[in-house]
Amino acid sequence: MTGRNKPRSNTEPVSELTASRLSVYLRCLNTLDAAGLKTISSKALAEQFHLNAAQIRKDLAYFGEFGVRGVGYYVKELKRHLRAILGLDRTVRVAILGAGNLGLALADYPGFRQEGFSIVALYDTERTKIGRKSRGGVRICDISEFRKSVKKDHVDIAVVAVPAESAQGVVNAAVQAGIRAILNFSPGTLKVPPGVKLKNVDLTVSLESLSFFLARGDGDEETA
Amino acid sequence: MTGRNKPRSNTEPVSELTASRLSVYLRCLNTLDAAGLKTISSKALAEQFHLNAAQIRKDLAYFGEFGVRGVGYYVKELKRHLRAILGLDRTVRVAILGAGNLGLALADYPGFRQEGFSIVALYDTERTKIGRKSRGGVRICDISEFRKSVKKDHVDIAVVAVPAESAQGVVNAAVQAGIRAILNFSPGTLKVPPGVKLKNVDLTVSLESLSFFLARGDGDEETA
Repeated sequence: MTGRNKPRSNTEPVSELTASRLSVYLRCLNTLDAAGLKTISSKALAEQFHLNAAQIRKDLAYFGEFGVRGVGYYVKELKRHLRAILGLDRTVRVAILGAGNLGLALADYPGFRQEGFSIVALYDTERTKIGRKSRGGVRICDISEFRKSVKKDHVDIAVVAVPAESAQGVVNAAVQAGIRAILNFSPGTLKVPPGVKLKNVDLTVSLESLSFFLARGDGDEETA
Repeated sequence: MTGRNKPRSNTEPVSELTASRLSVYLRCLNTLDAAGLKTISSKALAEQFHLNAAQIRKDLAYFGEFGVRGVGYYVKELKRHLRAILGLDRTVRVAILGAGNLGLALADYPGFRQEGFSIVALYDTERTKIGRKSRGGVRICDISEFRKSVKKDHVDIAVVAVPAESAQGVVNAAVQAGIRAILNFSPGTLKVPPGVKLKNVDLTVSLESLSFFLARGDGDEETA
């Protein structure tokens, strides 16, 4: 049996887009695994999920040689590899800064409560909110406790869900507290020091993608 | 002056990923335009925003020949072309189904209130919510009025922000009302008939992308 190398510990930077694609591949493999499929070729994977076969091979080859000639990929094994590459082989602890509508929605977002993530708490400045819980049971804490909580609860990722005008201040506080990865939902440009990873979520891209398909007039789920 | 063809009316399907990339290119061009840049090469665009130059050329070439030899792309012109390709040269009208935390957050999401989009209204079944407004002033209407509103207000896109167990029912109602493009935030698999475009937003992908960078230990904003 060939082609089962460990992921390379490559120090070359990998683009945001590669990381997102790995995440998409993992989703597809979860679906295939749930359907009981044992193996799949890059070609079949690409066709079934409307991806690019050459891109799949290139993305995966960067981390090792997972394909087996004449077989393709072993679904369960590739899933396990992708989870390890994505750092999901351990629990990733997430704190949400801002307990407004967006923060509360994210705290109870089903996708954040599985897949190796754990929501530690929500943080806010508003007295009336502190001590309460989200509908799903996530505690709202005083933001002044955040710094201590980062150490105590081993927070890995801070999600920023505060109004745009407060975002940079909150990000600065998170960085000072030792946070190295930030998922930001506020619009506008935020600054972080070197060594801290900032990911901006822009939901407009999704709407534009739909607008694109309406403009082209070629409906159909996922395909077109 | 060469290379200024109109977008091809190509009927071949274009992948979700292409549409998202066009949207990302538009973001980058907006930034460059705001900074006063007149022209940019695919190579410089790729380097500045950590994209792939060959992929940029390929994606754009699909819609026409926008580059000019020895010059690259005219920023304003390419922006205009991309907006037209993405269907943003007219106002796209959006209705949000579900006025819970997520729906309310989306109604006031700054990215949904610019860029050629207009939020028509929120819709919900809960009596106590109907007649109220989001903090940003978007009206909450009775979901029973939705069908009529689709025609009257020319709704193009329905955003589904209801709990998972209600999602398929809401999607069915939206399709019956004549909606052809749906942005879904509920987890789980939804069915739509042919000719209707369903886009699922999975915020877990963003968190996984950060987890990936933490696992690799190479922070740095956007680059790594």
